[in-house]
Amino acid sequence: MLLHELAGIGRDPDGGVTRFAWTRDDAELREWFSARARAAGLDVEVDGNGNLWAWAGGDLPGRAFVVGSHLDSVASGGEWDGPLGVAGALAAVEQLRASGWQPQQPFALAVFADEEGGRFGVACLGSRLLTGAMTPDRALSLRDDDGTTLAEAMTSAGFDPARVGADPRRLAGIRAFVELHVEQGRMLLPGGARGLAGAGAPLGVASEIWPHGRWRLDLTGRADHAGTTALADRDDPVLSLARAIVAVRETAEELDVLATVGRVRVHPGAVNAIASRASLWIDARGAEPERVRALVARIEERSAAAAVEESWTAVTRFDRALTADVSAVIDGDVPVLPSGAGHDAGVLALAGVPTAMMFVRNPTGVSHAPDERAEESDAAAGVRALAELIRRQTA
Amino acid sequence: MLLHELAGIGRDPDGGVTRFAWTRDDAELREWFSARARAAGLDVEVDGNGNLWAWAGGDLPGRAFVVGSHLDSVASGGEWDGPLGVAGALAAVEQLRASGWQPQQPFALAVFADEEGGRFGVACLGSRLLTGAMTPDRALSLRDDDGTTLAEAMTSAGFDPARVGADPRRLAGIRAFVELHVEQGRMLLPGGARGLAGAGAPLGVASEIWPHGRWRLDLTGRADHAGTTALADRDDPVLSLARAIVAVRETAEELDVLATVGRVRVHPGAVNAIASRASLWIDARGAEPERVRALVARIEERSAAAAVEESWTAVTRFDRALTADVSAVIDGDVPVLPSGAGHDAGVLALAGVPTAMMFVRNPTGVSHAPDERAEESDAAAGVRALAELIRRQTA
Repeated sequence: MLLHELAGIGRDPDGGVTRFAWTRDDAELREWFSARARAAGLDVEVDGNGNLWAWAGGDLPGRAFVVGSHLDSVASGGEWDGPLGVAGALAAVEQLRASGWQPQQPFALAVFADEEGGRFGVACLGSRLLTGAMTPDRALSLRDDDGTTLAEAMTSAGFDPARVGADPRRLAGIRAFVELHVEQGRMLLPGGARGLAGAGAPLGVASEIWPHGRWRLDLTGRADHAGTTALADRDDPVLSLARAIVAVRETAEELDVLATVGRVRVHPGAVNAIASRASLWIDARGAEPERVRALVARIEERSAAAAVEESWTAVTRFDRALTADVSAVIDGDVPVLPSGAGHDAGVLALAGVPTAMMFVRNPTGVSHAPDERAEESDAAAGVRALAELIRRQTA
Repeated sequence: MLLHELAGIGRDPDGGVTRFAWTRDDAELREWFSARARAAGLDVEVDGNGNLWAWAGGDLPGRAFVVGSHLDSVASGGEWDGPLGVAGALAAVEQLRASGWQPQQPFALAVFADEEGGRFGVACLGSRLLTGAMTPDRALSLRDDDGTTLAEAMTSAGFDPARVGADPRRLAGIRAFVELHVEQGRMLLPGGARGLAGAGAPLGVASEIWPHGRWRLDLTGRADHAGTTALADRDDPVLSLARAIVAVRETAEELDVLATVGRVRVHPGAVNAIASRASLWIDARGAEPERVRALVARIEERSAAAAVEESWTAVTRFDRALTADVSAVIDGDVPVLPSGAGHDAGVLALAGVPTAMMFVRNPTGVSHAPDERAEESDAAAGVRALAELIRRQTA
């Protein structure tokens, strides 16, 4: 795989990678992609939202078959989530070129900008702006932890924020989109197996992306001195925070949904002061949206605080015919898995583009973390299948 | 009171104040003090550790009677903790001057640097460096949240880090030290009353400072994707953090000590990622050191993690004879209270200086918070008592 060429970019001491959008690391990843794509005979362009498009047969009549993924990562993430779909597609094009491929229909390899939302807190920015699912005004005023707006970050990185926004012509030119991605988690399959590893299959396809949302719970208390305030006199929001975190887990188990608290904030955060307020963020997803919403309602009740909905995405179903085309290029049984994670493919699907996903087996299921892994041989099987799919879709 | 002259310095939107050491706010507070002290006929000097000393009769033979406190605050603190002791002492000197006071023994009003530890995490830096309780090397390499060292912060503020360190000659020149301070908390008094408000007394004196310590608990888990990892597959350190916070409160109630978690840290802190590690800080204090240590041991056991002791201070007893002198200048019954909070007076007491504290009633007991309050008439009673004490001690 070509992934090893990216190994040094955004590498953390703990072995993971942190590759936020619109940074110098991001610029390096983009330069690497552009050089590799050109070497494979593709014409590279950047759209107004910072997404990269590498074309073959771009001037042929008709609408394009598009594959791709993203190159950015979460903080302390793994190196497969995103880059596998980009480097895998590049490798597939190289294989096709070596076999004399000449597309008869337009083809593009897309690299979507700022998929993880690690910096500005909103995932799939590049694809959401492209489809109009997010307005330029809202996006450009998002701030990172340093207070930098997206508009400022894009400008620093050499992009023009004035060009950001929906691009219906480009969207209409996409006939179908397929994203190759490392498997995330070990989903329970209909036969009872856990994930592709449990099923003994190197590759699988996606049925749907679970509905998911993010909520913020703000808990207030009364600031006071840690060394002088009797326990009975305290109104300590950190204690409320702790009880709410425990409640999130207990309720998730009761309702059989996934719910996580990965971010908390305590103000003022001094060791010797009872805090005045604390916030936690709940990420919740599951096969049934009613259960996800029921979890949030129960947490509100147990903590006597209102949860602020920061995002909500309904279930996203992938295209059945296109998914059958993807399964047809994979050898052996092809498990069908739901995805708990969101993807650019999901954003395009919601915008009406026929879309499918192919998963490469992840032995442990770990993702968004340094231990995220796939076997080289499984990744190679994914590349072979993707190459055959591109050949068929551009014949 | 003179406190209103400081009202605009370091004022937060929520009504509290944030006045960290070695900042521009700190410089303003120092300038205010120096100007006020000179106007009251005192000679102002700065020692090598950044403590301010305003002298009357500094060239008289013998050792000095010293009063004072500090001007810095915790983040989002109140305006009485520290400044009451400084402004109150200035007001007392002004009253004495108006009555023709001429000290027959050296007198100084001291303003200790960086008492709260709000910026570098270690309280009473100015007095600890003076007494040698902290080495210059350790102090100067402390870092604030921005990564700035104390050495750098002092240099920026115009102080010479090379002058930092124990000052035994200055310490030996202090015959006795008295700190006027706003009451903190509503301590249970022998007769069953809660605090000075419960006892109906505007002023009180301190018996001792409770033993207290700070511990850090580092909890590790396994980073993973929040949307794809089955609950049963998770090792989520935020859940461990929450359970430890609840355990701290439960154990504090069982053992009748004060224990607080006011600071937590979660890494990497992304909404959609199961964290890889989390830390919490425990501040614990009480009348009996065995119970404080027992609390930490129980938390270690319940969380299966080792607590790192960041600081420990044994009980500090104030001087009985000097405390009797303080009580003698106060009208009516004078309640004797322990202090849950640490003070520069405690640091000096540990270094062998005869030391006492006078408390001004705090109706609610709230401190280290915007709601910290004292009645003007109670503060005025404290000033009158302090003036009489200074008169007697310098006669």
